[in-house]
Amino acid sequence: MKTYGVIMAGGGGTRFWPLSRRKRPKQLLNLSGNDLMICEAYERLSLVTDEIFIVTASSQVEAMKAAMKDVREDHILVEPSARNTSACIGYAAMEIVKKHGDGLMIITPSDAYIRNNAEFARVLKIAARAAEDGKHLVTVGIQPTFPATGYGYIEMEGEGEVRKVLSFREKPDVNTAAAYLFQGNYVWNSGMFLWKASTILEKFEEFLPDLYQHLLLIGESMNTPKEREVLSAVYPDMRSISIDYGIMEKSEDILVVPGEFGWSDVASWDMLEKLHEKDENDNVCVGNVVAVDTKDSVFYADDGLIAAVDLAGIVVAKVEGTVMVCPKEKVQDVKKLVDALKEKKMEEYL
Amino acid sequence: MKTYGVIMAGGGGTRFWPLSRRKRPKQLLNLSGNDLMICEAYERLSLVTDEIFIVTASSQVEAMKAAMKDVREDHILVEPSARNTSACIGYAAMEIVKKHGDGLMIITPSDAYIRNNAEFARVLKIAARAAEDGKHLVTVGIQPTFPATGYGYIEMEGEGEVRKVLSFREKPDVNTAAAYLFQGNYVWNSGMFLWKASTILEKFEEFLPDLYQHLLLIGESMNTPKEREVLSAVYPDMRSISIDYGIMEKSEDILVVPGEFGWSDVASWDMLEKLHEKDENDNVCVGNVVAVDTKDSVFYADDGLIAAVDLAGIVVAKVEGTVMVCPKEKVQDVKKLVDALKEKKMEEYL
Repeated sequence: MKTYGVIMAGGGGTRFWPLSRRKRPKQLLNLSGNDLMICEAYERLSLVTDEIFIVTASSQVEAMKAAMKDVREDHILVEPSARNTSACIGYAAMEIVKKHGDGLMIITPSDAYIRNNAEFARVLKIAARAAEDGKHLVTVGIQPTFPATGYGYIEMEGEGEVRKVLSFREKPDVNTAAAYLFQGNYVWNSGMFLWKASTILEKFEEFLPDLYQHLLLIGESMNTPKEREVLSAVYPDMRSISIDYGIMEKSEDILVVPGEFGWSDVASWDMLEKLHEKDENDNVCVGNVVAVDTKDSVFYADDGLIAAVDLAGIVVAKVEGTVMVCPKEKVQDVKKLVDALKEKKMEEYL
Repeated sequence: MKTYGVIMAGGGGTRFWPLSRRKRPKQLLNLSGNDLMICEAYERLSLVTDEIFIVTASSQVEAMKAAMKDVREDHILVEPSARNTSACIGYAAMEIVKKHGDGLMIITPSDAYIRNNAEFARVLKIAARAAEDGKHLVTVGIQPTFPATGYGYIEMEGEGEVRKVLSFREKPDVNTAAAYLFQGNYVWNSGMFLWKASTILEKFEEFLPDLYQHLLLIGESMNTPKEREVLSAVYPDMRSISIDYGIMEKSEDILVVPGEFGWSDVASWDMLEKLHEKDENDNVCVGNVVAVDTKDSVFYADDGLIAAVDLAGIVVAKVEGTVMVCPKEKVQDVKKLVDALKEKKMEEYL
């Protein structure tokens, strides 16, 4: 069966502001020092797929094309507006069925860092085999390494490489997370999915009939001159709902393959600690940094210089003329800064 | 009697790095938002003097001339190298005696902020009258407002506007400073001095005979073609000693005029709190700053934007491509950063 990679790359990633901007979202950043996240995701997914589609936002398409020069133009799918993962996946599935022939979709986010690509490929191939019969929706779960409260969890049943999903659990409090970790039959929801394109469209018909009607309209216009026009007209009307809420939590016979391949959700500035080596004082310094009597901090300078003295647990990011400073334990609050800038109509900094 | 202002403006001010640089020292900065410190000092001193000399370093002379366009070239005295306040004052005194005629010198540093210029002028005029007889060295003391450990103190005797100096005291520990404050007969040493040019030269002869010999050589060359050559040859050999150690502490019959005119020693970044109004969360924000859930901090952005979230008691300064971050209670350690940059040979940032 033909295998199609689908990289969901339409998000904004405000928590990496000021590095991530509207026109330069997280997936177009080089956070590891090796390559842009989207390029790393593409290379990785190439290990297990025949061809790869990138679904992105119209605001990012030019930058995306510039970054992904070897990707065929018809493999970059442009969402007229952001309508969450259900619309994104439904659109990609319809595109595949109508233009390229039914096959297995391997869907991944664009903003996770994975250390061990070979192990990633091994796990994904197991998951792909489990999805090939067209009777199962398959997801890849991440073996938890700490009682994370920032991720959704998947409760599993059974043993072995491929297991049955008992339930999806929302982000837990820390006690619940610790219990999940202790019980051992929970994995983190990675947002990676594997299924046949025709299978997921059947699930849309069953669980998201309104979206399915929209997808049918879009599908009918495909390969006609009206295609872009219909997409632009229909897409913004689609209900914004995640594939987890919309289909995964309602569907039965979902399988999960637990994986351990050095996965990190690169969600916020403190995650640079996972991507870069710390110095002898547990500081991460990307770019030109002089840190005196400073420990446990994260510095990112695009150019110029960051000079820090007597700091502990502080994140400082300098990108062009913008400086962001916050405590490491509060990196999630970078979002508040983005909100404050919106409120103050300081759009030029977003 | 003719009255000459002398502004000592040769210092570096590393504690305001990265705003202060080798070629742009503190006195050439606009920290108050009104004008360069040197211009403010000049305007203020104009209230009580006929003409004003600026003594500066050769590395700063171009920037100084650009900043002080209305000052006659022969009123900018250029030290070939920095040799502390005795050499600086002796050079200015010799220049006055040899080229302009003996008269009263009113000597001030260039890096203090003074809120009440009218009161400053009133106090300086009292001090000037006390120095006019040529028999006294006069200094202006600052009425202490807190038990400062960062300043030298002057012990006074008597009452009234002009008092006798009993002793100069070095920077005290906090208990001693509190005792000084309680006793009431101590003022801060402001580094402002008033005396006749001929009087201070006599004191050089008496207390600093080696420096006096150097000054004689320099004086003999004045108004000859060899003047600059002799100055450049002799000046670097002069002993580096402060006027306080060299003359004031050894001399008798020193008078002090206590003053209260809103004086602040603008020595380090936290002093921006004295020059600017705080916001409702006790933050000082100079330039374009967005601070969310942040208190008691100091921000200085030359352009661009500083965005801070969840900070308390932090100083962030952005100047061109350089960002400096340190806790407010550790602003003295900015000097350590300058030292570290020197050690790493990152001269371009100094």
